[in-house]
Amino acid sequence: MTDTARDNVLWAWTLIDALAASGVVHAVISPGSRSTPLALACLRHPGIIASIQVDERSAAFFALGLAKARHQPVVLVCTSGSAPAHWYPAVIEADMGGTPLILLSADRPPELRGCGANQATDQNNLFGSHVRAFHELPCADGDPDMLRWLRALAAQAVDQGCWPLAGPVHLNVPLREPLLPDRPWPALQAAPVAAVCYPVMTLSPDAAHSLAGELSGGRGLIVCGAGVFSSEFPAALMDLAHRLACPVLADPLANLRFGAHRNNTVLSRYDAFLRAADAPRPDWVLRFGAMPVSKSLQRFLDGLAGVPQLLVDCGGRWLDPLHRASRLLRADPAALCRQLSELVERAAPPSWLAAFKAAEHRAAQLAEPEPPPEAEVVRTLIDLLPAGATLFCGNSMAIRDLDAYSGCGDKALRIAGNRGASGIDGNVSTALGLAAAGATPLVALLGDLAFYHDMNGLAAARGLDAVFVVLNNGGGGIFEYLPQAGLEEFERGWLTPLELDFSHAAALYGLSYAKVDHGAGFCAALAVALKGGAHLVEVSIDRANSVARHRAYWEAAGENMF
Amino acid sequence: MTDTARDNVLWAWTLIDALAASGVVHAVISPGSRSTPLALACLRHPGIIASIQVDERSAAFFALGLAKARHQPVVLVCTSGSAPAHWYPAVIEADMGGTPLILLSADRPPELRGCGANQATDQNNLFGSHVRAFHELPCADGDPDMLRWLRALAAQAVDQGCWPLAGPVHLNVPLREPLLPDRPWPALQAAPVAAVCYPVMTLSPDAAHSLAGELSGGRGLIVCGAGVFSSEFPAALMDLAHRLACPVLADPLANLRFGAHRNNTVLSRYDAFLRAADAPRPDWVLRFGAMPVSKSLQRFLDGLAGVPQLLVDCGGRWLDPLHRASRLLRADPAALCRQLSELVERAAPPSWLAAFKAAEHRAAQLAEPEPPPEAEVVRTLIDLLPAGATLFCGNSMAIRDLDAYSGCGDKALRIAGNRGASGIDGNVSTALGLAAAGATPLVALLGDLAFYHDMNGLAAARGLDAVFVVLNNGGGGIFEYLPQAGLEEFERGWLTPLELDFSHAAALYGLSYAKVDHGAGFCAALAVALKGGAHLVEVSIDRANSVARHRAYWEAAGENMF
Repeated sequence: MTDTARDNVLWAWTLIDALAASGVVHAVISPGSRSTPLALACLRHPGIIASIQVDERSAAFFALGLAKARHQPVVLVCTSGSAPAHWYPAVIEADMGGTPLILLSADRPPELRGCGANQATDQNNLFGSHVRAFHELPCADGDPDMLRWLRALAAQAVDQGCWPLAGPVHLNVPLREPLLPDRPWPALQAAPVAAVCYPVMTLSPDAAHSLAGELSGGRGLIVCGAGVFSSEFPAALMDLAHRLACPVLADPLANLRFGAHRNNTVLSRYDAFLRAADAPRPDWVLRFGAMPVSKSLQRFLDGLAGVPQLLVDCGGRWLDPLHRASRLLRADPAALCRQLSELVERAAPPSWLAAFKAAEHRAAQLAEPEPPPEAEVVRTLIDLLPAGATLFCGNSMAIRDLDAYSGCGDKALRIAGNRGASGIDGNVSTALGLAAAGATPLVALLGDLAFYHDMNGLAAARGLDAVFVVLNNGGGGIFEYLPQAGLEEFERGWLTPLELDFSHAAALYGLSYAKVDHGAGFCAALAVALKGGAHLVEVSIDRANSVARHRAYWEAAGENMF
Repeated sequence: MTDTARDNVLWAWTLIDALAASGVVHAVISPGSRSTPLALACLRHPGIIASIQVDERSAAFFALGLAKARHQPVVLVCTSGSAPAHWYPAVIEADMGGTPLILLSADRPPELRGCGANQATDQNNLFGSHVRAFHELPCADGDPDMLRWLRALAAQAVDQGCWPLAGPVHLNVPLREPLLPDRPWPALQAAPVAAVCYPVMTLSPDAAHSLAGELSGGRGLIVCGAGVFSSEFPAALMDLAHRLACPVLADPLANLRFGAHRNNTVLSRYDAFLRAADAPRPDWVLRFGAMPVSKSLQRFLDGLAGVPQLLVDCGGRWLDPLHRASRLLRADPAALCRQLSELVERAAPPSWLAAFKAAEHRAAQLAEPEPPPEAEVVRTLIDLLPAGATLFCGNSMAIRDLDAYSGCGDKALRIAGNRGASGIDGNVSTALGLAAAGATPLVALLGDLAFYHDMNGLAAARGLDAVFVVLNNGGGGIFEYLPQAGLEEFERGWLTPLELDFSHAAALYGLSYAKVDHGAGFCAALAVALKGGAHLVEVSIDRANSVARHRAYWEAAGENMF
């Protein structure tokens, strides 16, 4: 006779054990009844670190942060009904940002679907094109052959979530009642799964030789945006850039600006100096990762009709929003850099890199003596963060100000962000997920709307070392720079000031709270907050002043930088 | 030459104007750049009442509440990227609950998709099987024939969202830059659209005659669950039940328990009296709407093998989770009741209804003298709410306690809830949407987890008359009644107490706050709160006491009710 409850426990354990054997360490569980066997297996498995979060949306972004911390797949568990739909924004971010997530949604069995049963909805292909794979499981089955298949499927799901492009994988898990057995429980054991070996993808010797010849001696630009790069990539790229003597325009999320790997080719202030009419035209552009956040860099690249633009990508994506790519190089970035470094024969004329370094220097001076207030906040952050710290940067203005004003440095800082879909959603939880995975000290730099959007996520801050720096410019300040600012409906429909006193949010979630100016006040509050615990540091930004100084800075950058 | 900006404005205006001409009154907008022409058309159209909400998830549930208030389709507008994904939980609730929503997601044009452009993701069929229809629009086109088509499509979308089963319809709206023109703006005018006439669906005379014959004189049970019924339905059903002299077991969300329409056939305490071993077996069951929330009613119906169970539904759904239906009657509930009333020849024996009314009376006595604390809260609510008030009831324990303890009454009270997917999500915003549509005074009865889940939604409370009554039993108290309560991981993995001081949430959003006991304290606080404004009344529930009294009540109901 079928023992449904026993099969449920065995089935869920086998799934979780096989995921753990495939490299999963973290699981984030939202409470529910139907998901009980899955949640219990996560809570009891010795190889799984389980977190609990009531709000599935925050749970998913928290899992995203955990997964980003070490590029390991993280499991999400929730109950049936609308619950898994709350994962969708984080699923889209994971899809576009290349972050591995294993989504385990509990479901009603087939006989309770489409007939008005409680909390039963159509969870088949719930996330459409935004997952690498979808697997509809059968109901729990205690047959040893079925359990063996389930182990293999779990390993396959992790593989699909990791390669060739990391991302979310959805397993829908129907479970019949009774969900839990009376004692005794079935014996639950750990077992191995098939291991997967991944290739190093390089160009053929001929293609690499030919490419190196094209790059050698040219006045080239290397552009590196956000991406999931291997730990060997920074050094490999630095070596290639050094041999080519070409500048590397490094987006903050490329994680090239800060650290001991950095050599003198890395530049960060191109958002300013590429506004200049005298910015020189390169012979070629070699791009890694996503298109950087800088609008002026994008405009510059868009103006380079006829210049070869080469795009390196091994994940199958076509990251060329300008439609200017002349060649896609399907190769591992670090491996390609090493391959090319060995083949490059001549560097660019020394004046080429020197001109860009001079422009970088001039741009750094431009912000003085009256930088935008956000520039001072960014500088204080970079100065005060200890080596090894992680700075999570929110979207909208926060990432643009970090991009423009961070500069570069030898101190090892990790910069993280959600630039897949670039939403202002889930930023609090993603930051806390990074902190929970040990990426501490962790500072999150967010605008007021982004902070509000994921305020529920603060429930996970308890016991973590995390500092939220909220740039409060009274709403969607980024829209001040767009034509919408001229509309009479601007404040109501676009700026949308929240008029919330965030001290109450801090009190609700047990964070310390300080409201400070962007100068000495912020400096002092940050120094205190970095000593440990969970903190909210709200920086009051005078929006009009900020807009004026940003504009003045950009205007100054428009001329004679080279 | 194509004038993109002018076309954008014309296109968006035409779409919104045609939606307004098709009956849309409310639009809920989340701020963004790409959606600017759509948002602006909503803000400027004289026939549209626009609300702004930063969090798209809360915005969607707020729209759901607006749409529920008068069963009118409500427009949602947001920008591209992960933004529309936040609508998904409300879309699922609207799908399953039969609530019309028109989802307008702005999108990047085709040339910015799949190429790494910022905030561009695959929005095609974003909501999968959970919308009645999906329309991918072309980019804005100023050609008069295209604008004429757009008007027709808007009217068609409203039709798809209203009939035969109301629900969400998604229009994805790609827009090219520049989004806004310089002055002068194009002339924007209102124009009509095709009107749609809907049928009255009745059975054929022969079928109705035969059905009436089957029901006549039988010991029947009428069961009515949640549903979107016409305003004629309560009176029509009461008339039929009177002629048949059969009890109507009315779920609170059937909106039959309270109001002047009610006659002596309506019963509310079946969750208690159907637990009795001596509950009599009916000759037939006639069901309207969804399966009611009561588990004991479900068990009772499941035990009626061989008894004809007839299910009335004109929306194309098959709402029979027990797989006990013997016949589906595809007819309009009110029209069918009127049709049958004219044909019914004999009532049941008087003892039949009398036995059920006696059981109802006994069940009402059972809760004395020590009712569960939630029962007292429910009774106070029913007593103190003025005629015409709306009570939004959250899911999990709140709806079960309302179901068990509300009783019936002549005072007109509207009971609302989200029983499509039955999630604890979006409850705050749905309630506020009802209030914003004029369903005031509005009281929302929610558990602590449901209140927390949608706390961001409180941003819309400003200026509304709304009272949130939060039954705080320290987490997911409903799980106490399930086998999970015996697990050693129970508190951490299922109960999940939040340990949040909600007074800070009230302060954050400008609600008054009172923390009270379930007796006199609640009574006094509710009386004050009902005078107007936005209030949070937190009722502390002793979970152990609550569980013990619920169990004692159910046990007492298990014997000799008939």
